[in-house]
Amino acid sequence: MPTELERAMEILLCQFHKYACKEGKSNSLSRCELKKLMENELPTFLKSQKDPGAVDKIFKDLDCDGDGEVNFQEYLSLIGGLSLSCNQLYEMHLRQQNQQCKK
Amino acid sequence: MPTELERAMEILLCQFHKYACKEGKSNSLSRCELKKLMENELPTFLKSQKDPGAVDKIFKDLDCDGDGEVNFQEYLSLIGGLSLSCNQLYEMHLRQQNQQCKK
Repeated sequence: MPTELERAMEILLCQFHKYACKEGKSNSLSRCELKKLMENELPTFLKSQKDPGAVDKIFKDLDCDGDGEVNFQEYLSLIGGLSLSCNQLYEMHLRQQNQQCKK
Repeated sequence: MPTELERAMEILLCQFHKYACKEGKSNSLSRCELKKLMENELPTFLKSQKDPGAVDKIFKDLDCDGDGEVNFQEYLSLIGGLSLSCNQLYEMHLRQQNQQCKK
C-alpha cells in the first residue's frame, strides 16, 4: 500500500500524463494542454490570476529550454512554485495563531 | 472541493510539517526528522538504498544553505528528484508497451 506522500507523487505524475498525451508529443504539455490542466486541476490558482494572459506568461516562464512544450521537469517547477506560495501562507497563519495564543 | 492535484500539493505540505514540528525549529527538518519522514513516508525509496549512510548523504545534498536543517524548498527538491526518477521509469515502461504493440 503506498503511503500518502507516495500517493501524492503518483498523482503529480498521473495528472501530467493525463494531459500531456492529448496532442503532439505524448510526454510534454503543449500550451493548450497546460491551459486545460490548469483550468481543470488548478482552478483555485488560475481564478486568482487577474491577468487574462496569465497562462501564456506561465507557459513562457515554464518552457526553460524554449522548445515550445512544457516537459515533466518544467511542470514540477510550477508545482514547486505553487507549493512554496501555499507554504508561506500556511506558515504566516501558524505565526498569527501562535501570537494569538500568547495574548 | 479541492482537485486531486490540489490535494496532492496539500499532502506534500502537511507531511513536511507533520515531521518538521517534532523538534528544534518548527518549519524545517532536522536530520532525525528527515530520517523519520523518509522511513515512514518514503519506505519504498529508502529500502532501495543499499548504503546505510544514505540518509546522511541525502540530508547533506538537500541542505543547500548549510544551516543544518532542511527547509520546505529543500524538501521539495527531494520530492522533485524522486518524481523525476519515477517519471523516467514510467516513460520507459510506456515506450516498451508501445514497441510490444507494434510487433
